[in-house]
Amino acid sequence: MMNDTICALATAPGGAIGIIRISGAQSLEILSHIFTKNLSDAKANTIHYGYIAEFDAVSQHQKLVDEVLVSVFRAPRSYTGEDSVEISCHGSRYILNKILELLVHNGCRMAQPGEFTKRSFLNGKLDLSQAEAVADLIASSNKATHQLAMSQLRGSVSSELAQLRDQLLHLTSLLELELDFSDHEDLEFADRTELNTIAKSIDKQVNRLAQSFETGQAIKQGIPVAIVGKTNVGKSTLLNRLLKDDRAIVSDVHGTTRDTIEDTIDINGVTFRFIDTAGIRQTTDQVEKIGIERTYSAIDKARIVLWVIDQKPSTKEFDDILERTENKKLIVVRNKIDTAEDSHFTLVKIPLIEISAKQGTNLAQLEQTIYEAAGIPTLSDTDVIITNARHYDALIRARQSLSRVLDGLRLGLSGDLLSEDLREVLNILSEITGGQITTHEVLGNIFKNFCIGK
Amino acid sequence: MMNDTICALATAPGGAIGIIRISGAQSLEILSHIFTKNLSDAKANTIHYGYIAEFDAVSQHQKLVDEVLVSVFRAPRSYTGEDSVEISCHGSRYILNKILELLVHNGCRMAQPGEFTKRSFLNGKLDLSQAEAVADLIASSNKATHQLAMSQLRGSVSSELAQLRDQLLHLTSLLELELDFSDHEDLEFADRTELNTIAKSIDKQVNRLAQSFETGQAIKQGIPVAIVGKTNVGKSTLLNRLLKDDRAIVSDVHGTTRDTIEDTIDINGVTFRFIDTAGIRQTTDQVEKIGIERTYSAIDKARIVLWVIDQKPSTKEFDDILERTENKKLIVVRNKIDTAEDSHFTLVKIPLIEISAKQGTNLAQLEQTIYEAAGIPTLSDTDVIITNARHYDALIRARQSLSRVLDGLRLGLSGDLLSEDLREVLNILSEITGGQITTHEVLGNIFKNFCIGK
Repeated sequence: MMNDTICALATAPGGAIGIIRISGAQSLEILSHIFTKNLSDAKANTIHYGYIAEFDAVSQHQKLVDEVLVSVFRAPRSYTGEDSVEISCHGSRYILNKILELLVHNGCRMAQPGEFTKRSFLNGKLDLSQAEAVADLIASSNKATHQLAMSQLRGSVSSELAQLRDQLLHLTSLLELELDFSDHEDLEFADRTELNTIAKSIDKQVNRLAQSFETGQAIKQGIPVAIVGKTNVGKSTLLNRLLKDDRAIVSDVHGTTRDTIEDTIDINGVTFRFIDTAGIRQTTDQVEKIGIERTYSAIDKARIVLWVIDQKPSTKEFDDILERTENKKLIVVRNKIDTAEDSHFTLVKIPLIEISAKQGTNLAQLEQTIYEAAGIPTLSDTDVIITNARHYDALIRARQSLSRVLDGLRLGLSGDLLSEDLREVLNILSEITGGQITTHEVLGNIFKNFCIGK
Repeated sequence: MMNDTICALATAPGGAIGIIRISGAQSLEILSHIFTKNLSDAKANTIHYGYIAEFDAVSQHQKLVDEVLVSVFRAPRSYTGEDSVEISCHGSRYILNKILELLVHNGCRMAQPGEFTKRSFLNGKLDLSQAEAVADLIASSNKATHQLAMSQLRGSVSSELAQLRDQLLHLTSLLELELDFSDHEDLEFADRTELNTIAKSIDKQVNRLAQSFETGQAIKQGIPVAIVGKTNVGKSTLLNRLLKDDRAIVSDVHGTTRDTIEDTIDINGVTFRFIDTAGIRQTTDQVEKIGIERTYSAIDKARIVLWVIDQKPSTKEFDDILERTENKKLIVVRNKIDTAEDSHFTLVKIPLIEISAKQGTNLAQLEQTIYEAAGIPTLSDTDVIITNARHYDALIRARQSLSRVLDGLRLGLSGDLLSEDLREVLNILSEITGGQITTHEVLGNIFKNFCIGK
């Protein structure tokens, strides 16, 4: 599996340029059959201009496929740690297919999703949590997801785990010390207090990491927001206002339309997803019954509920929405403050924002309130946040083993019993970085969701 | 316009890798503000690993944006002929936007469509017909369009025109010789015969080029095919059969669905487009009236008509279809030969292919017949085919001026009058390669349809 040379398209098809990536010991040898220049002596990290050509059996001539730039990387100084080549060609689907065909014909295998990164891991260039961060980085769509992925790629999770590992090893060595001197009763007592303190501190740290997964998930998945309210209060106008300013250069340039993207906005770098808004903008006069069902279902899926009103609600209306949104963050949005009618009122404990969706009044204030309702802690560069379900699962299992250690310390169990549980904690935590022997199946599951070409 | 430094995303967003391209005298200076390595002494055609970083005003630290590879190109050995840089980064939209933002913030301008290639032209790296071939190459979707674009990029049109130019200059010099010796009546007579021969040969050559535009267009646009016939004869089954085997690696890999692509197939590297087939596969029992209108409209737009039948048609039916398809290539397709019912018959002059769409019988034969009906000449590597409407227009105008030269020769007009028309022919032809001074407007029109980033 690791001995062959793999190739894949690493860019999305359809641009001006396409990049085809090749990695493995035979990279340059395979390339030599289809490239017009001899690169056998090419230095690492150099770029070479030439043509990809194929031998045409009919005309008995070399047929030019494309004018390309070839980048040469030498093991171990490459992404995968192997000899690698990148072909920068014109982005025509025909050309991309043709070059991939020629590579396969000359001995390459089409790469599996994530296989370049997998090789990078297997060759010790990245640990497993860093490898996973590569996929997150590529998928990152805003400041917060980008920051988390970048920090994980730079080894933040790994170094936090390395620290935990050091403490666990220290704990183990203290237990072994205790075993060696097990005839001195006084010594044992003293050690157990210290052991308990260290174990509790480790548990606290593991717990903090596990807890951070909620924030990590909220940032990664986006925070679900429902916009509810009666017909004609301006829900769709408000939604359009909120969505309007959130466009990216790249999307614009390539004419990606809003239709294909979910209705999301970024506030302070965090994504908020509007639930089930497909209908909002079209059906202003939908049948009331359907409207109510939709509203309930949207509230159920939301973390934040924007209740849009255009006049002071009745006590019954208020009680209804409070009951419905018991476990949610409710924000009352009084719309249409630009119209003459004065229906000003105040609320206790529940945020009330007065806006004019039509004129765009107080929208920044509303966005800030939405952001605060999400309860995302302000992240510093040094905060380690778990975003990966596999890591979360390992942390939860590590805590279970740790709780056995803590129980054992309380019950005065013998050191060798405790050691066993401690070893288990170490093993579970090292699953995260892949330090522990990692099965083919685990690796398969991790890399199958990667892009092709990465 | 040419003095500033431009940047653009050169790949489609959404892949594992994105390439951002920078060109202009300030490329390396601008990069130095956002790249963690000093590249001021970097050699041409070298690759450098490092980080894109931005200064964060809040934390007063450099914030890492991405781990990237930077390729350095030095003038004049670059695509544009200017100092250039390519940043190979992770394909996240957030990262791509961020890097472009940083580049613009530090003095780059976002490139116009085709602006890199335009600079390449203005710096004398490509002539205009070659620059146009770059866009065609990127758009090329099959063997034939690829071959035409590649040959034009390699200068086939340019060198054909250079040859014509030599002959025109020869003609001009002969006319000037005649002027110098205009008192020798005998000499003039002799020259005029030769002049006439040369002018006719040039005209023939220009005409051949202009005529090739029809083939060029057919290859570039694809050849329109209509599938017509009664309900339930198996039109949709046939269409699905024809479309089925025509899938590309690249499309498959990225999950592009057939829905988004027009219904086209490639036969021997040439594209055939099925007209108005959206309805075929769904409406098997559509109202007959609508069916007939659709059929007529599809036939009108087609170059090739597949008339699908499942039994011997009546004389009236035959007369009807013959009348309707008078200027088209008609192919009669008798489907369902797998069923017991024997309705074998033969036709004179019109191809009749007996198939079973259901079982896939004789489809290769049908495809070959479709290909032959298109009447695309077999192209050799040296054939020059005009694919560009701008070139065609110039060739037609050149022929008009040439015909005035030929008329003048026949009428015995004086050499200086003929010279003027000859100069015009030369000027018109040099528009194609851009040798003649090219206006800003003409260039604008040529490059506005390019991709961004090329």
